[in-house]
Amino acid sequence: MTKPNNLQTWIEQERAMRAVMDGGPGPGVGRPDQVSGKTGLEIMQAMLRGEFPYPPIAQTLDFLLIDVGPGHAVFQGTPGLAHYNPLGTVHGGWFATLLDSALGCAVHTMMPPGRGYTTAELGVNLVKGLTTKVARVRAEGKVIHCGRQLATAEARLIGPDGTLYAHATTTCLVFEVPAQSKT
Amino acid sequence: MTKPNNLQTWIEQERAMRAVMDGGPGPGVGRPDQVSGKTGLEIMQAMLRGEFPYPPIAQTLDFLLIDVGPGHAVFQGTPGLAHYNPLGTVHGGWFATLLDSALGCAVHTMMPPGRGYTTAELGVNLVKGLTTKVARVRAEGKVIHCGRQLATAEARLIGPDGTLYAHATTTCLVFEVPAQSKT
Amino acid sequence: MTKPNNLQTWIEQERAMRAVMDGGPGPGVGRPDQVSGKTGLEIMQAMLRGEFPYPPIAQTLDFLLIDVGPGHAVFQGTPGLAHYNPLGTVHGGWFATLLDSALGCAVHTMMPPGRGYTTAELGVNLVKGLTTKVARVRAEGKVIHCGRQLATAEARLIGPDGTLYAHATTTCLVFEVPAQSKT
Amino acid sequence: MTKPNNLQTWIEQERAMRAVMDGGPGPGVGRPDQVSGKTGLEIMQAMLRGEFPYPPIAQTLDFLLIDVGPGHAVFQGTPGLAHYNPLGTVHGGWFATLLDSALGCAVHTMMPPGRGYTTAELGVNLVKGLTTKVARVRAEGKVIHCGRQLATAEARLIGPDGTLYAHATTTCLVFEVPAQSKT
Repeated sequence: MTKPNNLQTWIEQERAMRAVMDGGPGPGVGRPDQVSGKTGLEIMQAMLRGEFPYPPIAQTLDFLLIDVGPGHAVFQGTPGLAHYNPLGTVHGGWFATLLDSALGCAVHTMMPPGRGYTTAELGVNLVKGLTTKVARVRAEGKVIHCGRQLATAEARLIGPDGTLYAHATTTCLVFEVPAQSKT
Repeated sequence: MTKPNNLQTWIEQERAMRAVMDGGPGPGVGRPDQVSGKTGLEIMQAMLRGEFPYPPIAQTLDFLLIDVGPGHAVFQGTPGLAHYNPLGTVHGGWFATLLDSALGCAVHTMMPPGRGYTTAELGVNLVKGLTTKVARVRAEGKVIHCGRQLATAEARLIGPDGTLYAHATTTCLVFEVPAQSKT
Repeated sequence: MTKPNNLQTWIEQERAMRAVMDGGPGPGVGRPDQVSGKTGLEIMQAMLRGEFPYPPIAQTLDFLLIDVGPGHAVFQGTPGLAHYNPLGTVHGGWFATLLDSALGCAVHTMMPPGRGYTTAELGVNLVKGLTTKVARVRAEGKVIHCGRQLATAEARLIGPDGTLYAHATTTCLVFEVPAQSKT
Repeated sequence: MTKPNNLQTWIEQERAMRAVMDGGPGPGVGRPDQVSGKTGLEIMQAMLRGEFPYPPIAQTLDFLLIDVGPGHAVFQGTPGLAHYNPLGTVHGGWFATLLDSALGCAVHTMMPPGRGYTTAELGVNLVKGLTTKVARVRAEGKVIHCGRQLATAEARLIGPDGTLYAHATTTCLVFEVPAQSKT
């Protein structure tokens, strides 16, 4: 049984996504008037179409949003020497950043207009070391539970051949966004 | 009761530490012959004296080692716009990276020569949002348990006035490093 | 869309399982000679056939093993007043006990002869309160990763109609069992 | 350096506490009119004076509340054969139940009248196996953060000689209790 090899497809999707982003507003933070009245899914889809700024941390740590849908979100990243720990592998914090992004955005897609979320807890299991020999990884997040005050989600960090590098769970608070909030 | 304000002290310690690092080998990964035969504490102390390369991720995410001792380690970071999520605050992954560094290095200080560790699990609680209005934060890690096969540690991310932004716990595997290992 | 209702099936499976257990050695701890040379899956299957004692905690907290296979295990429990916290719902510790059992046994099924495991970390998300109005719940555990020194698994606690009450993740240490071990 | 031995003191405190409880209403659930208008600390202190029913799970799993104060709570338990897993040690679920009790009650002490809490997430690190050779253990919980919507706490499970068996962290939701709530 041969392992799948999605690397070529992943790189092509990334190239297409980067082209979209290059035509957009670049890294930054959304303005309240851009998000007001929209569902979380609409906001995420607008980000995918390059109509919204993308998160600065994504540029800093070389990853980007690849796909989003109701209750799920996928980010893709390129392991680089700039992400290394002193032990010669990618730092656990890089894993955590991609996984937290996938988890948070998956939860975000479930928010109706006027509802916000914040991550209260993030648990990451690191099961395999990662180096630059792996050209790309994907963090795939999926909502498990979404209630009135609490949401939970799970995510996996995998390579193009399906190898699992890490998995994670999050506990998010859900709340009403105060009108005219600028936080 | 006034809150403490350690900001000036923290910035001076950072300046001193950066001067030490500028005289060292820069960001990179330690060679096996540099670490062979040393305790984890000796390795961490050599890093503090600028004799070892420091982790590339620390440069990428603007944080550095400030202090280390038996069973504890402290990192200091500068929250920046480059670390922001789309919500306009510092991304949880930046919190996780600093906390994971403090936790891992605290565990590292407990390793005798020939023993290594790897992070198996990281749990982060985010209790307060962070912006660039906070000039510096510190991640302080402390070992809770260190056994033959397992080590655990806890860490807090605090501001100069003592405000708590996040706390974390880790579960590390401890093992014998194979002789001549190049991983 | 109507929800499934598995309650009748679950109760019948429980009755069949209790009959098997009543013909076995009862609650207790396995002797080393009973488990020596067996895979974890063989040990778990022998428990399912009533050939091994079942764990005393299962009797104390009113739950039992229902199914086991390579990489998965299912326990079923009856929420009772004896499991209540002061708030008038089932205590989180009861959730944790069933989930930990499902996680640990799922990992156990992956052990070859001479290999053992121990739970190092357990993370539980409680998403819905549970009372005696729910006649039965199931904790279904599934291995995510199983390596030479580390295994991880996930589990869900659900009702007969598919309602999710909690989910969990575990980090287990895997090791060689010393010959003649009596621990 | 000799280890402390608090066993005698612990047993005497337990005896005194059991005498108080035997004069009270026994195991059960508090009525809304008993808790209405009281702070969480007042409710916990009333439980300590035997004026409130104590949680049924405490009787089932042989542990009891020993001490409570602003932001902290201590439970004491007796490891028994009835708590064993198939491996011949106390089940991780028993650890989790005592730790969750200490964490939850510590958070409860911070609630003003009309505010309630619920455990959303519980993370337990098991660092040492426990058998009936250890006569008593204590779970000591302490609040780390208590905000308007979120509270976190940490706890340790220790023996009379200070040996650490487990530690834990919790993430709790805090909310306004609806008037006349009967949940």
